[in-house]
Amino acid sequence: MIAVLKNGTNDTQIKKLTDWIESLGLQVHLSKGEYQTIVGLVGDTSRVDEDLLISLDIVETVKRISEPFKSANRKFHPDDTVVKVGNTSVGGDAFAVMAGPCSVESCEQVVEIAKAVKAAGATLLRGGAFKPRTSPYDFQGLKAEGIEFLLEAKQQTGLPIVTEIMDASHLPMFEEVDLIQVGARNMQNFELLKELGKTNKPILLKRGLSATIKEWLMSAEYIMAGGNENIILCERGIRSYDSQYTRNVLDLAAVPVLHELTHLPVIVDPSHATGASRLVKPMALAAAACGANGLMIEVHNDPKKALCDGPQSLTPEQFSDVMSSVKKILG
Amino acid sequence: MIAVLKNGTNDTQIKKLTDWIESLGLQVHLSKGEYQTIVGLVGDTSRVDEDLLISLDIVETVKRISEPFKSANRKFHPDDTVVKVGNTSVGGDAFAVMAGPCSVESCEQVVEIAKAVKAAGATLLRGGAFKPRTSPYDFQGLKAEGIEFLLEAKQQTGLPIVTEIMDASHLPMFEEVDLIQVGARNMQNFELLKELGKTNKPILLKRGLSATIKEWLMSAEYIMAGGNENIILCERGIRSYDSQYTRNVLDLAAVPVLHELTHLPVIVDPSHATGASRLVKPMALAAAACGANGLMIEVHNDPKKALCDGPQSLTPEQFSDVMSSVKKILG
Amino acid sequence: MIAVLKNGTNDTQIKKLTDWIESLGLQVHLSKGEYQTIVGLVGDTSRVDEDLLISLDIVETVKRISEPFKSANRKFHPDDTVVKVGNTSVGGDAFAVMAGPCSVESCEQVVEIAKAVKAAGATLLRGGAFKPRTSPYDFQGLKAEGIEFLLEAKQQTGLPIVTEIMDASHLPMFEEVDLIQVGARNMQNFELLKELGKTNKPILLKRGLSATIKEWLMSAEYIMAGGNENIILCERGIRSYDSQYTRNVLDLAAVPVLHELTHLPVIVDPSHATGASRLVKPMALAAAACGANGLMIEVHNDPKKALCDGPQSLTPEQFSDVMSSVKKILG
Amino acid sequence: MIAVLKNGTNDTQIKKLTDWIESLGLQVHLSKGEYQTIVGLVGDTSRVDEDLLISLDIVETVKRISEPFKSANRKFHPDDTVVKVGNTSVGGDAFAVMAGPCSVESCEQVVEIAKAVKAAGATLLRGGAFKPRTSPYDFQGLKAEGIEFLLEAKQQTGLPIVTEIMDASHLPMFEEVDLIQVGARNMQNFELLKELGKTNKPILLKRGLSATIKEWLMSAEYIMAGGNENIILCERGIRSYDSQYTRNVLDLAAVPVLHELTHLPVIVDPSHATGASRLVKPMALAAAACGANGLMIEVHNDPKKALCDGPQSLTPEQFSDVMSSVKKILG
Repeated sequence: MIAVLKNGTNDTQIKKLTDWIESLGLQVHLSKGEYQTIVGLVGDTSRVDEDLLISLDIVETVKRISEPFKSANRKFHPDDTVVKVGNTSVGGDAFAVMAGPCSVESCEQVVEIAKAVKAAGATLLRGGAFKPRTSPYDFQGLKAEGIEFLLEAKQQTGLPIVTEIMDASHLPMFEEVDLIQVGARNMQNFELLKELGKTNKPILLKRGLSATIKEWLMSAEYIMAGGNENIILCERGIRSYDSQYTRNVLDLAAVPVLHELTHLPVIVDPSHATGASRLVKPMALAAAACGANGLMIEVHNDPKKALCDGPQSLTPEQFSDVMSSVKKILG
Repeated sequence: MIAVLKNGTNDTQIKKLTDWIESLGLQVHLSKGEYQTIVGLVGDTSRVDEDLLISLDIVETVKRISEPFKSANRKFHPDDTVVKVGNTSVGGDAFAVMAGPCSVESCEQVVEIAKAVKAAGATLLRGGAFKPRTSPYDFQGLKAEGIEFLLEAKQQTGLPIVTEIMDASHLPMFEEVDLIQVGARNMQNFELLKELGKTNKPILLKRGLSATIKEWLMSAEYIMAGGNENIILCERGIRSYDSQYTRNVLDLAAVPVLHELTHLPVIVDPSHATGASRLVKPMALAAAACGANGLMIEVHNDPKKALCDGPQSLTPEQFSDVMSSVKKILG
Repeated sequence: MIAVLKNGTNDTQIKKLTDWIESLGLQVHLSKGEYQTIVGLVGDTSRVDEDLLISLDIVETVKRISEPFKSANRKFHPDDTVVKVGNTSVGGDAFAVMAGPCSVESCEQVVEIAKAVKAAGATLLRGGAFKPRTSPYDFQGLKAEGIEFLLEAKQQTGLPIVTEIMDASHLPMFEEVDLIQVGARNMQNFELLKELGKTNKPILLKRGLSATIKEWLMSAEYIMAGGNENIILCERGIRSYDSQYTRNVLDLAAVPVLHELTHLPVIVDPSHATGASRLVKPMALAAAACGANGLMIEVHNDPKKALCDGPQSLTPEQFSDVMSSVKKILG
Repeated sequence: MIAVLKNGTNDTQIKKLTDWIESLGLQVHLSKGEYQTIVGLVGDTSRVDEDLLISLDIVETVKRISEPFKSANRKFHPDDTVVKVGNTSVGGDAFAVMAGPCSVESCEQVVEIAKAVKAAGATLLRGGAFKPRTSPYDFQGLKAEGIEFLLEAKQQTGLPIVTEIMDASHLPMFEEVDLIQVGARNMQNFELLKELGKTNKPILLKRGLSATIKEWLMSAEYIMAGGNENIILCERGIRSYDSQYTRNVLDLAAVPVLHELTHLPVIVDPSHATGASRLVKPMALAAAACGANGLMIEVHNDPKKALCDGPQSLTPEQFSDVMSSVKKILG
């Protein structure tokens, strides 16, 4: 981390600054030039508050050289993290496929879908029990009952289950859930992240609606700072100025970028990213091609009751077709 | 709400659709044309799930004519809401000014600032006790102790206090807080919104980092659906592609837009929006000029300990200067 | 196209409106309901000015059902367009690869690179002669001389060449250029597009920095309206709120979306999209996997003079490696 | 400008770099530390190509301290520029008001509006003769004839005129135009900017649809680099993720930011920014309150022929009302 000081900063001011930096346990590397004085902060700068540093009257500008995340940083943990989830793994050489309905609607529904996606090659069952909806008047999910239905489907198929948590106080209901999902809207619900950090549950951390990659990794860091390092990142599209044909913009370059920055596994959700079932296949293939560690895909099974399925869900047949093509890409 | 059906939709399918719409308590207005069939949904369409409607195989496109929010909608509540907060009010003809430090650091600090901002004309004292920080390693606030210091400042000055809540489980600590703030990162923390809807506390709902105006009003609707209608909206800048000179883009046109759409008061936070103390004054004046019901401004008092104040905070003298200019604009 | 009229619109006003619509050569389908009157515009609505319609006092809202582009619309031209470019083709089953230096620097440089990229499988040679630079003080390209060097490389390798035009008055210099590129910053330089519409040259139309897909297709429509239908679209990343690790966000979902909307070929430029050579390979693979008709990739050759090559350029060896992997994806 | 070198850079490499920097006419200030070597570039760094510097293998990161624009930079030209436009001025203490129709439709129309806006206090007449339209099928303006009508209105009212240019080849038609507007879509049409730099005409440079403040100033710099320093900047809203209620987001904080960065005058166009006549007044007041040097406002006059006026235009009466309120704000 480098701070460039303003012209005219005097020695007393510099001394005060360097004393403070050293009090944080860092070393100072001072370079006084004819035109500018540069202060290098050497050591674990992840604990330096950049906003605070830049707010000092004598500081012209601040430049981080190392990233502010530490536990998530590949530099300090070069090997890929492989997260064990029930009887399967996410990360490393494995390619995880989490499939299932947007919302759990009934036990029959979720069991039937679970069987179908397992047959097509899914490695986890996904399904929403608690549903974050923009409107308070929209369906909010079956909640505890939804989790029970997922567990029943797990028992019948052996597939580990992943479902979303919306408040730390619900944690007791998630005891048998294999992988707890933090949704985009809660990516910076820091109190929830801290509570999840105290558990040893695998966490699927979705990217916030308009989160930067750095903010996303800092949210992973919140969980890891509590001692829980079982984190899987999930790119699900970001907000842009153009939402006419796709709900979000799927930022696939985030996949190789994250592989450089962090050792955590990264999966991709083409269903939410695009909001259109026709686009799930091409985006799933692209995700596989650029190195994602897995996919999360919405699958429904209900030709008679089409009223309740989202425009982004695949039928089991379509899902099966996606899976064969993905396998070809993976080689 | 209008749904345009796809070419070739048959009468059985239309009957099934109109039956379902009527089962929601709505009337149907059907218009079969040579080229397209249009279904008008008449009644309280705020409870119709637009995603679900558009997902139907026979639906080409959906167009909302009335807004999906109801309690917050000016159409059904033409008069301005005036929210009573302690001994003061926000909304209507009053112009509220909430001023104080970003973080509460000590009792002396907050009492001193409270006295200074009151003298300059502030009507509420703001101060952060729980601090949402991007990094888990940054200062997280004094928490319960911070609230006590704010209450002490309230006792000494008579100013009602506003401070941010980050989790519903903290509510007991907020019993004596006059106005509870929901921060930008929690604008879609729906579980928190639901809990706040069960209280009768005035709520300051900040706009999310990249929330649309409609999403923001839907979050207000979450609180109001629970029975709590004491809501103040706060525009605090939105995320854009250019953050070199201002942290966010202050969307001032949201103020008159909201005055049309809703009866709830709208205030503006130029400190967080810009992230630069030099820009607080011009943006405060612009907010007053375009009809905001008030301002939220960061003020610090600590020339000796400049290390701990944000780059966006004003000194009490600067704040006093802003207040005189704002008064001129208000006329 | 549907216009919903405001409550209280009288018959005289409706008559005036429908007369006007019919004067545009369209049929009117009127549906008067108890609550709302709906006007359907039937026929070639691409020539209806939506802004104008919505500005009418009696109109509540307008909804387009068919797209405003016509020549570019797959609906009216179901078969893929294959654009003939010199001795090669772009579109349909062919996979085009345009490779070469960001800027043409010398004849030797461009000839050497041309030979290298041809050997690795490129089908066109790219190179910048006129360079759009944000700063007037940055290198602006070799201009006419640069085009001569490209033509020399074409003669030695047989590769057709593609290079960017920045003003219609330069067209005489582009007479022997096989494919004329319109850069992102000129996507809505309508005077340039009109002039290109009068030629019969193949045009590579890059997406604007923050263009919507519809605006992009409307710009293609400008060229096609002049009679030139030889257009290739190129996705090159769009502007977002996060540019720390990638210069732009590569919107790969635009590829399958465009294949639905238009018959024109779509290629992808992973070099400009990411701005980082390390990310070119994964994004090239993803583009191939999701159905792009080709790639545009920056390649440089100059280990000794590294000062002049961009951080997004590949060496010929790296390019060759990308090509082998792409071929595997294409199967 | 500071470049931080990578660990392990050797002396030969550093020597090669510093020689190159010195060859650009700059001085080098080298600081070798135990952990990192920092190279300070001292002098006129506006001519250093940042992309090029960061592309060097040995460079870890680059940080500009001074801005890359020079002629537009307030640092080198502390006094406000006042641009003389016909018989009026823009900048400094003057408050300019440019009003008139979106499109020039007839001589009578523009003369009538010119008289009305002059009576209400406008200082310039605006009107579109060449119209940049997203669709090739929309009205493209009266072109040369439109300029003649504007000149007739100028003769009858004495108001200087401002109108948009779309291609450098049209310059001869603009000889008697007092202020030439460069529209948002042409802000980075560098060939046009260069040609305008060779004239001595006052130029109104609108901000691009998603231009950063720095890019905008670099475009001003293109014109100034040619010798023409008569430039007025115009903020007209930027693209965002939310366009439901306003077409763009009006970035008013850009006004005080620009006043710090540059000596050029800055005006605001609330009509295009919002796209809604109801929002023009509050945004005009906000612009005046935060220090804009003027306004550009659309005014139409045609109650009988409402079909041809935009939803963002004011009537002369509404404009007159805006003017009285603006005068109160200006004090």
